Amino acid sequence: MPHPFFKNYGPLSISKIIKFLNIKIDKLSTDQEITDIKDLYAAKNSEITFFHSKKYKEIAKNTKASFCITTESLKNDLPKNCNSLIVENVLVSVSKLTSKFYPDSINDNFDETAISISDSKFKDKVKFGKNVLVGDNVSFGSNCYIGHNSIIEKNVNIGNNCFVGSNTIIRNTIIKDNVRILDGCVIGKHGFGFFPMKIQNLRYPHIGIVIIEDNCEIGCGATIDRGSMSNTVLGKNTYLDNQIHIAHNVKIGENSIIAGQVGIAGSSVIGNNVKIGGQAGISGHLNIGNNVEIAGGSGVIKSIPDNTKVMGYPAKNIKEFLRENK
Amino acid sequence: MPHPFFKNYGPLSISKIIKFLNIKIDKLSTDQEITDIKDLYAAKNSEITFFHSKKYKEIAKNTKASFCITTESLKNDLPKNCNSLIVENVLVSVSKLTSKFYPDSINDNFDETAISISDSKFKDKVKFGKNVLVGDNVSFGSNCYIGHNSIIEKNVNIGNNCFVGSNTIIRNTIIKDNVRILDGCVIGKHGFGFFPMKIQNLRYPHIGIVIIEDNCEIGCGATIDRGSMSNTVLGKNTYLDNQIHIAHNVKIGENSIIAGQVGIAGSSVIGNNVKIGGQAGISGHLNIGNNVEIAGGSGVIKSIPDNTKVMGYPAKNIKEFLRENK
Amino acid sequence: MPHPFFKNYGPLSISKIIKFLNIKIDKLSTDQEITDIKDLYAAKNSEITFFHSKKYKEIAKNTKASFCITTESLKNDLPKNCNSLIVENVLVSVSKLTSKFYPDSINDNFDETAISISDSKFKDKVKFGKNVLVGDNVSFGSNCYIGHNSIIEKNVNIGNNCFVGSNTIIRNTIIKDNVRILDGCVIGKHGFGFFPMKIQNLRYPHIGIVIIEDNCEIGCGATIDRGSMSNTVLGKNTYLDNQIHIAHNVKIGENSIIAGQVGIAGSSVIGNNVKIGGQAGISGHLNIGNNVEIAGGSGVIKSIPDNTKVMGYPAKNIKEFLRENK
Repeated sequence: MPHPFFKNYGPLSISKIIKFLNIKIDKLSTDQEITDIKDLYAAKNSEITFFHSKKYKEIAKNTKASFCITTESLKNDLPKNCNSLIVENVLVSVSKLTSKFYPDSINDNFDETAISISDSKFKDKVKFGKNVLVGDNVSFGSNCYIGHNSIIEKNVNIGNNCFVGSNTIIRNTIIKDNVRILDGCVIGKHGFGFFPMKIQNLRYPHIGIVIIEDNCEIGCGATIDRGSMSNTVLGKNTYLDNQIHIAHNVKIGENSIIAGQVGIAGSSVIGNNVKIGGQAGISGHLNIGNNVEIAGGSGVIKSIPDNTKVMGYPAKNIKEFLRENK
Repeated sequence: MPHPFFKNYGPLSISKIIKFLNIKIDKLSTDQEITDIKDLYAAKNSEITFFHSKKYKEIAKNTKASFCITTESLKNDLPKNCNSLIVENVLVSVSKLTSKFYPDSINDNFDETAISISDSKFKDKVKFGKNVLVGDNVSFGSNCYIGHNSIIEKNVNIGNNCFVGSNTIIRNTIIKDNVRILDGCVIGKHGFGFFPMKIQNLRYPHIGIVIIEDNCEIGCGATIDRGSMSNTVLGKNTYLDNQIHIAHNVKIGENSIIAGQVGIAGSSVIGNNVKIGGQAGISGHLNIGNNVEIAGGSGVIKSIPDNTKVMGYPAKNIKEFLRENK
Repeated sequence: MPHPFFKNYGPLSISKIIKFLNIKIDKLSTDQEITDIKDLYAAKNSEITFFHSKKYKEIAKNTKASFCITTESLKNDLPKNCNSLIVENVLVSVSKLTSKFYPDSINDNFDETAISISDSKFKDKVKFGKNVLVGDNVSFGSNCYIGHNSIIEKNVNIGNNCFVGSNTIIRNTIIKDNVRILDGCVIGKHGFGFFPMKIQNLRYPHIGIVIIEDNCEIGCGATIDRGSMSNTVLGKNTYLDNQIHIAHNVKIGENSIIAGQVGIAGSSVIGNNVKIGGQAGISGHLNIGNNVEIAGGSGVIKSIPDNTKVMGYPAKNIKEFLRENK
């Protein structure tokens, strides 16, 4: 499946990739054309992948990719069909190569394609306020409203019966039906992902997008970053209050309710029917089960199983917390 | 007193109300016209009220309303003059009926009545920046300033010597004299109030407004939601720092000082001369007394009596907290 | 060095200053012209200074200022060359006098000098979106981008290769090279500094500015307040995530990484290579050393030495915290 929004500037020949990444390799039987960069699981024969941590060993064993960016110590876990390309820092190399395939995904400069909606093909389709802008590659369903000063930047699909408030900015986002996004939000910008460097940090590309399913509501002042390698997703009928920050790659299930000023760090996965109280924070890379309740102000630093209520910092079973803090 | 901003589409006949709420009732002596929906205390003879929790039993006994939406188990606490209308979920029925009286209070779509202030009757009265919009039913006192890109949406009264920054949005709000509201605020939008439902949550109407008394200052990026059945109020000379969230129905007293990123959940009442440190959070439905000091970062989950200093999560007496955390 | 942005309305004669501050003084040998107000350390012979707390005793002894606003109990620590002006509340008097020297620093009304950038001298130099405004005394280096609806208010110097997103407001700020500021930020407004008063608080002037060094990135929805008497500074290659609040006079070192929704209270100093996790809060007037790591959600209320990792509220050594909270 081609990327819905970012243009793939591939294919790139493997000889060019090797040169670009400054990799030493003995011989290259044929100069294959590489069509894309994907993770170990998704990569196909014509694509390149990467393997940077032992915890992906089992997936690595079965990758279909022909080439894999990895390290000396990990290369032996790759299958025979997959040629290892040894680098010092896998993620830095992946980042550089992804930027080569998807150069438009690094830079989040303002959208120069944006024009006044009243000069666009949507001028009779959408109800809009003053000073609304739309970029390239935008679509709207029926009965949509866009408030004053809002900017629907390039690469946005909006479904039916959607409402966007005023002063809101959206890009690289798919919005399904009956979604309401209030004022002053920024949705679909790149996440806070980069490699720290001494003089100037190296930003890695964010080729993920934001997907907002049916019937969601997003309060004022939200920031929802798009994913780096995967997408940031809000499940159906999930409601966010004001001033919430959702980092890149986060996935939230259906029917969840998230109160004001909550922050969810990168790559965490939140289940269905989850309730999160105001100002709670969830660390990155966690799994929060279904039907979980997190009390306001909690700091969650461990994954939480289904049907659990937690409170405190670090968040623990709510009964235990309240007993200890009478 | 008529509602200052939302049009009351009543009166509605009680027979229509009963049919609309799908209520079974034996007989109806006369088909009274109902002029409004109010709480147990405020409702008059021509109005309908509601009673959904035992804790309002004493007030229920003295209600003057002719009709009351309630449950089988509560109805016997109502006085003789008040006919009970039995429903399964009182608040859902109240929400539906309120939407019938005040349909304009549910939907917070962008204000389609807004026009450029330079095309309005205020063009010589108010000092304004570029691209400022004003909606219907707005008034200004003397010597007011409205910054660039700000939107004074419909239903806003602003007093004398008030200053509104840039990129700020205000609706359904009364602002008294000498008030300063900085940049990027959203004031008067509906709160985070709804009934969770499987497929699509049911938003309840927010017929309250926001009232900001004399001499207040509100920092950048604040969100202050209007009330659902009552108002959200900021007392005189109360100062809010940046990025603060004040939820619906919150009432804050006079001379209070609230530092950056504080969040106050719905329906809490804060006294006079209260100091709240940065990032503190206050749960909903609490009473914070006068002269209370809440240390930055605290999580307040219980009401606090006058003249108390608290700290921690859950917030407790500050001396106790510091002794325990040396 | 003259102030880079605020006009100094001095010199003021000492006789006028004494009258303005309502100070009783026996005799005045000559009516010296006072050119500026500075702190004890920086003040020169022609300038006035202030001394309000015993902790500045050692610096006071060596001040070069001819006049010093102070109290009866502190005056004896001043050197002979420095005439004491006795007042009841030193900081209130300093605030009033500073407002006299720098009246433009009190009021943060919207910038009435701002015009459309397409009508300015920058129309061919800078790449800009729709509806961009620039005020007086603004400069840009080469290759700069300013997004839609952003306002570069008066008193802003921007270096080379800088990117400002959309809906962002900047004033009283020096931005060096290769800086990226994303959407919806407010940078350079006055801080949350005032003297609490019964009827109407007294704002003190903020004559500091914001300085953002090379290669910094600032996420969406940040608020960075300018300093009151000193500057607010972000060191080279420091990155801020979304929804961060940096209060007045804060100084952050180089190569630091600050995650989403962090708040740093006034006058705290943060070292180099510091990592701060999401939603952490740092109280005012603290010193956070180099190479410090502060876990997400922590509340820091004490200074932290170099090379330390802390967690919790109040933040303590991370190993200790995790051992106690297993």
